[in-house]
Amino acid sequence: MVGDAIGSKLVALGHKVMMGSRTANNEKANAWRTRNGSLASNGTFADAAAFGEIIFNCTQGQVSLEALQLAGRENLQGKILVDVANPLDFSKGMPPSLSVCNTDSLGEVIQRQFTDVKVVKTLNTMNCQLMVNPGLLSDPGNVFVCGNDAEAKAEVNLILKSFGWEKIIDLGDISAARGMEQLLPVWIRLMGTLGTAAFNFSIVK
Amino acid sequence: MVGDAIGSKLVALGHKVMMGSRTANNEKANAWRTRNGSLASNGTFADAAAFGEIIFNCTQGQVSLEALQLAGRENLQGKILVDVANPLDFSKGMPPSLSVCNTDSLGEVIQRQFTDVKVVKTLNTMNCQLMVNPGLLSDPGNVFVCGNDAEAKAEVNLILKSFGWEKIIDLGDISAARGMEQLLPVWIRLMGTLGTAAFNFSIVK
Repeated sequence: MVGDAIGSKLVALGHKVMMGSRTANNEKANAWRTRNGSLASNGTFADAAAFGEIIFNCTQGQVSLEALQLAGRENLQGKILVDVANPLDFSKGMPPSLSVCNTDSLGEVIQRQFTDVKVVKTLNTMNCQLMVNPGLLSDPGNVFVCGNDAEAKAEVNLILKSFGWEKIIDLGDISAARGMEQLLPVWIRLMGTLGTAAFNFSIVK
Repeated sequence: MVGDAIGSKLVALGHKVMMGSRTANNEKANAWRTRNGSLASNGTFADAAAFGEIIFNCTQGQVSLEALQLAGRENLQGKILVDVANPLDFSKGMPPSLSVCNTDSLGEVIQRQFTDVKVVKTLNTMNCQLMVNPGLLSDPGNVFVCGNDAEAKAEVNLILKSFGWEKIIDLGDISAARGMEQLLPVWIRLMGTLGTAAFNFSIVK
């Protein structure tokens, strides 16, 4: 769902996008490609990682490392990796817990395991429709960004602005992913309380 | 600081307030009493717990259980305990981690250890000046509440409204304390990024 939303938005903005999956002919990826026209293509994780100048990790957090290993270190090297994933662990039932948190985060784990990649964590604190269409909310709120590489964050900020985001908060280095991922437990509670996923965090002053 | 802010506000609203400390003659508590006039008094944790109809836990989260044990089970029994504390662990340096999180929370630990007490978690997601004066911000944002007892939450909501809070979000039972306490890591990052503690979370739709 997240990859579909972000991939479709990027195509709508004129980018060439390859959707990666475990297999080259994943049914959902085929359907996404057909829906999105000539700028869209699909292949394996490795195909997509080799193709992309900027890589989006839109996998479920529990399988992100495996997907990135399948993508291939040599295909990711030197590139920006936009990490949208959350390490939600549903294996013990609802509500999910975080498989890594507090003194570490998925964003940091990925950065440590792929030292040649510029990991930028963003967009993980909201529903995927809102990620690519902040105008869905009368007040869109904030999107958070963190990562160790300033130029990579500047490039990602441009993408976020092209998605319609105006209030972008840079929380610093990749260790801020701890706080960003730890927003999920209250986000999940809020979804239950509000009865909708169409909401966001806004920082008010 | 938190006890001073909340105690002073309650006195200003006309409530009798006893500030509890480890010793009956704590210097800061004496100074707080002197500043706040005839409605203010101070004593031991046990004195304060016996005195109060509603108890506020404004201790540092690492010592909350010890303070509540000193307050005395018999003095707390059947009462509302407003838990404002966060389990921030500064022992490993900055930034602090949470000594309990993810699949448990300080609010839940207190509720499990003091089963006769009606724990209501609230106000832990902001600076103490803002807790008692939401008008400090041009947009005050939200205050969250959770707890197992609906009547206790209704009473606490009245207190929050008397503090000036309008947008109160009830997140359900005390297990929502997990999400509320896990807001602290991003709160601490935001304080560094924004250069001020004068901000709050607002949920926008």
